[in-house]
Amino acid sequence: MAYQLFYWPGIQGRGEFVRLALEEAGAEYEDIARTQGVPALMEAMKNLAPAHRPFAPPFLRDGELLLSQTANILYYLGPRLNLAPADEAGRLWTNQLQLTIADMVTEAHDTHHPVATGLYYDDQKAEALRRAEDFTHKRMPKYLGYFESILADRAGSGACLVGDALTYADLSLFQLVEGLSYAFPKAMAHLAPAIPRVSALRDAVASRPRIAAYLQSPRRLPFNEQGIFRHYPELDAAHEAPQYYANPT
Amino acid sequence: MAYQLFYWPGIQGRGEFVRLALEEAGAEYEDIARTQGVPALMEAMKNLAPAHRPFAPPFLRDGELLLSQTANILYYLGPRLNLAPADEAGRLWTNQLQLTIADMVTEAHDTHHPVATGLYYDDQKAEALRRAEDFTHKRMPKYLGYFESILADRAGSGACLVGDALTYADLSLFQLVEGLSYAFPKAMAHLAPAIPRVSALRDAVASRPRIAAYLQSPRRLPFNEQGIFRHYPELDAAHEAPQYYANPT
Repeated sequence: MAYQLFYWPGIQGRGEFVRLALEEAGAEYEDIARTQGVPALMEAMKNLAPAHRPFAPPFLRDGELLLSQTANILYYLGPRLNLAPADEAGRLWTNQLQLTIADMVTEAHDTHHPVATGLYYDDQKAEALRRAEDFTHKRMPKYLGYFESILADRAGSGACLVGDALTYADLSLFQLVEGLSYAFPKAMAHLAPAIPRVSALRDAVASRPRIAAYLQSPRRLPFNEQGIFRHYPELDAAHEAPQYYANPT
Repeated sequence: MAYQLFYWPGIQGRGEFVRLALEEAGAEYEDIARTQGVPALMEAMKNLAPAHRPFAPPFLRDGELLLSQTANILYYLGPRLNLAPADEAGRLWTNQLQLTIADMVTEAHDTHHPVATGLYYDDQKAEALRRAEDFTHKRMPKYLGYFESILADRAGSGACLVGDALTYADLSLFQLVEGLSYAFPKAMAHLAPAIPRVSALRDAVASRPRIAAYLQSPRRLPFNEQGIFRHYPELDAAHEAPQYYANPT
């Protein structure tokens, strides 16, 4: 039976990490809110498996099983889609990387919503400028430098994060880099010389046949200013403007 | 061989979720930075298992295996400490709850550090007041109401989150409630009538013999203003002061 993915239909968001795994594996799946509309998503949140109710999308249904939390969904899918090692230590290491990527995704989101998810960006723009300043100056180099160092340690073992074959952690790092490049093109260009292996991994993922086909298809939604990664030029410029940092007001 | 836990010695922090699991199970473990000092922690971060380097503490060593990311460590420990179901669906559901708790822990942290982890609280106090306003008004009721609803759905199945026995998700929800009660006593008192089952679970965990003994021991560090859950009265008061929200200046 096909997998059913439940996520907001207008954004890549956290659902995209699951979509990429399903697409790379050529798995059969239905993206419910895109085929049946948002009411089907809301209905599912209320009525599917009340004992295992998700806190928020994305969630995935595989027969009787309903799973949420992106990293948890990928932990389940990994070996089934041949996108994670089969052994426990390898699965845990892949999960550890995924959770670190997830932490950075949350921080990327909070650059434009540092006060409240429920408020508009314009109502928290002053705070966003300060947070983006820190994110581009400190957090981006720290996180991406970490992934670069993992890849550097593995020189000779192939260009992927785990073992000798592609895993969902590679797909997720690709998506992270894509999102950051969309949201913070200047900051990413500034950082590029320090992360050649991360960039090479991004390119390798983008050129995989199924991923390349997916990225060209209408199933791949464009980035936009409703998602996690948003391009607000003033936030990207914050990495050149330390005065936001020193003089908040 | 005893487990080795690597975490900052002066705070409960994210390490506490691991400590609680080890303590409830009566597992043998060494809290390295508390017994050997912070240099041992720093040394381990650099030199232990370079191929599986952690991004940040906490991390756990079990023989040759080195794991980081709190939820990942607990996923591994769960069945070994008899604190998670043995079956895959049960483990994934426990993990899903843990990840949702972890999301709330991050949001609780960000109430006092909404701009940058590397800046002092006083340098982001204006932003913190706004974020705490949202957190206490919107996020606390949403998250804790979610856990309340999970417990309500299970009426008759015992007072725990998963199956019929205690899991690490229950210990983590206990810790979350303890932390929120320390940081936001007024907001929690306001919310208490809406979350009786969450409060009962907190009490049940606190009275388990090993947990009760641990909480009385010097191994349980007090909450303080260097950790995740910090008591700044002005942030707790933010839930009574919607003007921060409406008029951010």
